[in-house]
Amino acid sequence: MTTFSFLDDYSEGAHPDILRALSDSNFIQQAAYGDDAYSTEATTRIKAHLGSDFGGEIHYVASGTMANIVSISSCLRPHEAVIAVNSGHIVVREAGAIEATGHKLICVPAVDGKLTTDNIEAALSANAHFPHMAKPRLVYVSNATETGTIYSREELTAISALARQRNLLLFVDGARLGAALASTKNDLTLSDIASLADIFWIGGTKAGALLGEAIVICHPALARDFGFHVKQRGGMLAKGRLLGIQFQTLFGHSNLFFENADYANRMAARLAEGILDSGHLLDSEPATNQVFAILPDSVIQQLKQHFDFYVWAKRDDDRSVIRLVTSWATDVKQVDAFLSRLVQL
Amino acid sequence: MTTFSFLDDYSEGAHPDILRALSDSNFIQQAAYGDDAYSTEATTRIKAHLGSDFGGEIHYVASGTMANIVSISSCLRPHEAVIAVNSGHIVVREAGAIEATGHKLICVPAVDGKLTTDNIEAALSANAHFPHMAKPRLVYVSNATETGTIYSREELTAISALARQRNLLLFVDGARLGAALASTKNDLTLSDIASLADIFWIGGTKAGALLGEAIVICHPALARDFGFHVKQRGGMLAKGRLLGIQFQTLFGHSNLFFENADYANRMAARLAEGILDSGHLLDSEPATNQVFAILPDSVIQQLKQHFDFYVWAKRDDDRSVIRLVTSWATDVKQVDAFLSRLVQL
Amino acid sequence: MTTFSFLDDYSEGAHPDILRALSDSNFIQQAAYGDDAYSTEATTRIKAHLGSDFGGEIHYVASGTMANIVSISSCLRPHEAVIAVNSGHIVVREAGAIEATGHKLICVPAVDGKLTTDNIEAALSANAHFPHMAKPRLVYVSNATETGTIYSREELTAISALARQRNLLLFVDGARLGAALASTKNDLTLSDIASLADIFWIGGTKAGALLGEAIVICHPALARDFGFHVKQRGGMLAKGRLLGIQFQTLFGHSNLFFENADYANRMAARLAEGILDSGHLLDSEPATNQVFAILPDSVIQQLKQHFDFYVWAKRDDDRSVIRLVTSWATDVKQVDAFLSRLVQL
Amino acid sequence: MTTFSFLDDYSEGAHPDILRALSDSNFIQQAAYGDDAYSTEATTRIKAHLGSDFGGEIHYVASGTMANIVSISSCLRPHEAVIAVNSGHIVVREAGAIEATGHKLICVPAVDGKLTTDNIEAALSANAHFPHMAKPRLVYVSNATETGTIYSREELTAISALARQRNLLLFVDGARLGAALASTKNDLTLSDIASLADIFWIGGTKAGALLGEAIVICHPALARDFGFHVKQRGGMLAKGRLLGIQFQTLFGHSNLFFENADYANRMAARLAEGILDSGHLLDSEPATNQVFAILPDSVIQQLKQHFDFYVWAKRDDDRSVIRLVTSWATDVKQVDAFLSRLVQL
Repeated sequence: MTTFSFLDDYSEGAHPDILRALSDSNFIQQAAYGDDAYSTEATTRIKAHLGSDFGGEIHYVASGTMANIVSISSCLRPHEAVIAVNSGHIVVREAGAIEATGHKLICVPAVDGKLTTDNIEAALSANAHFPHMAKPRLVYVSNATETGTIYSREELTAISALARQRNLLLFVDGARLGAALASTKNDLTLSDIASLADIFWIGGTKAGALLGEAIVICHPALARDFGFHVKQRGGMLAKGRLLGIQFQTLFGHSNLFFENADYANRMAARLAEGILDSGHLLDSEPATNQVFAILPDSVIQQLKQHFDFYVWAKRDDDRSVIRLVTSWATDVKQVDAFLSRLVQL
Repeated sequence: MTTFSFLDDYSEGAHPDILRALSDSNFIQQAAYGDDAYSTEATTRIKAHLGSDFGGEIHYVASGTMANIVSISSCLRPHEAVIAVNSGHIVVREAGAIEATGHKLICVPAVDGKLTTDNIEAALSANAHFPHMAKPRLVYVSNATETGTIYSREELTAISALARQRNLLLFVDGARLGAALASTKNDLTLSDIASLADIFWIGGTKAGALLGEAIVICHPALARDFGFHVKQRGGMLAKGRLLGIQFQTLFGHSNLFFENADYANRMAARLAEGILDSGHLLDSEPATNQVFAILPDSVIQQLKQHFDFYVWAKRDDDRSVIRLVTSWATDVKQVDAFLSRLVQL
Repeated sequence: MTTFSFLDDYSEGAHPDILRALSDSNFIQQAAYGDDAYSTEATTRIKAHLGSDFGGEIHYVASGTMANIVSISSCLRPHEAVIAVNSGHIVVREAGAIEATGHKLICVPAVDGKLTTDNIEAALSANAHFPHMAKPRLVYVSNATETGTIYSREELTAISALARQRNLLLFVDGARLGAALASTKNDLTLSDIASLADIFWIGGTKAGALLGEAIVICHPALARDFGFHVKQRGGMLAKGRLLGIQFQTLFGHSNLFFENADYANRMAARLAEGILDSGHLLDSEPATNQVFAILPDSVIQQLKQHFDFYVWAKRDDDRSVIRLVTSWATDVKQVDAFLSRLVQL
Repeated sequence: MTTFSFLDDYSEGAHPDILRALSDSNFIQQAAYGDDAYSTEATTRIKAHLGSDFGGEIHYVASGTMANIVSISSCLRPHEAVIAVNSGHIVVREAGAIEATGHKLICVPAVDGKLTTDNIEAALSANAHFPHMAKPRLVYVSNATETGTIYSREELTAISALARQRNLLLFVDGARLGAALASTKNDLTLSDIASLADIFWIGGTKAGALLGEAIVICHPALARDFGFHVKQRGGMLAKGRLLGIQFQTLFGHSNLFFENADYANRMAARLAEGILDSGHLLDSEPATNQVFAILPDSVIQQLKQHFDFYVWAKRDDDRSVIRLVTSWATDVKQVDAFLSRLVQL
């Protein structure tokens, strides 16, 4: 008997609608390198969410690290630095990808996984001995954050206002933007983000695509020559149609992008409720598709026989925090099996 | 009425066997980042072609430019340079991607699209004023070349021998390695290349995959820490399974990789013969899936109404060279339609 | 009336012996780019301090930032990272110079300005999720530290042992190595450092030279091709003699390097004693040529009329910490003038 | 008996006026990192040569390679490339320094050592397949060139006009700008160059300084944040006074910069005339301080016993071209000794 994985939200392939769209379009010849009709249509559909005065561009790349590399390195001059939280994805999960393009990361503590205006101000004060210090120029946030928390409209608006006041660019890593926007706690829209950020990206990989992220460049000035950067960093696919078809499908009539995220969040909520009902505690109330539960180590050992998940941190002598991640593909029967197992133990 | 494209070999999606394999495996959970069962099986299958004493590793990335970036930058210290022909893909078609990782390209003339030992020797002689000149360290060739020509076993063996004698690494860009190996003029095997080169890659994108290239690191020393480079450059897919499934299929029982390439080459040969039969000349005898034909400009104008292709170069006052590219997906009826049109004109 | 500066140890030109040596040698023709007789002699003289089994090389560059850039970037592959304290010179005083060569800095808290084995271990534990995290490979320390503290033989030996055990390189930034070695608290020799570190540099700029730092590469493997890196980063002077003559003089019969540092340290000690005698407190006992004194803000204002120094930090409502830096060129009369002024206030 | 060197123009130390200025100012305390009174005065003096509407900045760095690195990398975005001649200093004498900052060099043939508008146009035409090719953005020329030829006012004006028309920046490497401007064939002034170029530098090292180059940024937009780049690349000296004093002296009352260059050129002319008088031929008429003479190999062997110089190229079976370089420090007695030796042979 095999185990079911709650390790991450990229253990399966793609949503069936996407596979179907790939099959249906397979023999239609298209221009290469993103100049295909599907990418054009995907862009039209995404732009419909961005507000009528959106004047920027959208480019598609294969991976989240690539989206971060291209977005950040295309914006900055060599001496300019990025402000991010210590736990930021670009800080600790991308093998030094941003530094490899030549830029310093200025790291500050996170509050509930998030960057705060206070910590941005602190970073600016501590990095003002010019020209001996790199010049802070871009603020990096991810929504949802590494721990699944989300920014409120008020929080992101405050960060955006501070950034504009201090001549900083605001960049939003949206690897799990779908989960954030579909959260019951969320009050932001794609259009809000497009007006608050200078550049951001919409993650497809964790929202039901085989791969692919849509970089939204809000600032026309930052969009200039963007394709060169995508090409130079190795992010441009010959068959750009592959990305176009997927985003066209995700942002089609069925609102698949939001549907998939909503489903994942609901599976997480179901897990969270069930865990509480079983008499155990959560480490934090889940906002998106990650659940952090506090369980006895003995229970964890038993659950591990049937389910895969990360043991996140030791809590005390007998208990640990585990992380459960759900996705568009999570089988509700497995969720219930996990919970009934938990009740038994 | 629409036109049929002979512009390139990446105008369609993927071979149906690949789409089927993606569908069949879609809901099977797998480990991320290339640690999935499909990538493991793909590697086993490719290694079966590499000779019994192959001791290296295979890694999968999304694009050809990424394969070049990761392969080259992982091998070199900052002061080391690459020798390539003026027309090399990394020289003129990748937006300065290799220089962006910090390395100089030392360019020499191509002979029939190829690098020669004489030109390598010349590059070494002209770049020996150390430490004022960057140190030549890696020889870059692509097989097939940018113009569709291929290296013979004798030629590649001579380059490899010179490289070893002069302490240079030999790297083969295999974006169209399938077309090269399936050529009727070819006398190289994958196993030969694995023993002659230090690192090379097998192109999937132009051989029927949606995307994906397999980097074969022949040297165990060069394989050390390779995954870090893939990750750092943005080349690692969360759903690495997407690349594994495709290469597993390409190198399965049906030998799809070689079949697809053989088909493309045969379509090119059919075009070439038909063009000669119609009384026109070729600029060169085709070795792979590219045909360079010399046609009157008036004829080219007429053909353009029904077919897409590049006008490669002016030949004389009335004639130009056109390039026709075929692929695994080229419709033989369109080949014949092109030829009958040509006869009519 | 003008002020006397205790701002730093590079406000004057060079020790007169150095100017004399420059004049004396001025019209003697020499080979360029470091192949001059003076550089050779300087290397011989420095090597005499490094122990009889020193098998490495010495290279000279113009600035401390250059010494750090060349030393670090020549050692590392692209995915390798540096461990340093938050207050490290490369972290906060070199405008992102190391990141500009592509490498991540992993920062840990300092203890008394210093890196500890515990904090190295913590950095290794927190950066082990490979290949998603950059690989820690080089440990950066400076001796003396940014705040003028020094490493004991025991401390540096422990760091070196840990580095070797964990396959890390140990690099010592020696911008103020003279002050450290001349400290009355010091128990390290140049020879000790050469055996404990893999690469380090001896600062000339702050020890009486016009400019210049001597990079000592202890490891023969790290010395291979070193000149290329110096050249490529712009650190090689056409008139390398300028650096050779200065280091030849600093390490000549009169032991000028150590004499200058000892003098600077004695001037700092004199300041420290005088401050204590005047009834004020020090923030820490000075080990080298930096004195941190706690003075009433009103006193500081008065002193500022005649002396330049940094106000380092607010201490409480009425008092601040000031920093006084001495050098080989500090006029003892100005030291005494400062102290008598302080007594008066 | 020792030999006299005509190898290069940096075999001696500094002009005595410079050594004297260093001594005279030695104990005057100054602000660090270029904020000293000498650098300010040097800038005032240089600006007096640049025309009354010069609105840019001047920064000082230690070496020519550093001047090229900082000037070029501060101007360009990552995807932008440099157009230069094959024989350009940045192409073949700086160990890949520009590529190490991430930028491609697009190389074209030189005509008489120089870049031509035709060759710039050709480079633009051949590098227009965007975004697959890096974007040409900066034109690099050096004056004098690697072979000692110089640009006329007409030539540089044509290049500048083309650059502006095609949105390219014009950068002039002035390692031997003194020799060029002091040439009897020259019709350019510093003020002309400041109005034709966007950024250029004035070489001190080869004009009698110990080291140092003055970067003149003509464009205010390019000057923004320039100090960060100097710092980040390791080009900023703690004792920036060392550079300020030298340029203040070179551009003082005695016009030492031009005097030194004029002297070097006159020594070269004296060599050239003497060689012609002795019945031998020149490979080209000297414009600056380099003489290329065609001599029998047997004569060369004899001369080598008393003089050092480069044998530049084989001419025919019995003769070679030698290169003789003169400088501000060339002893006229050695020039005459060389010539009388030649007559004897």
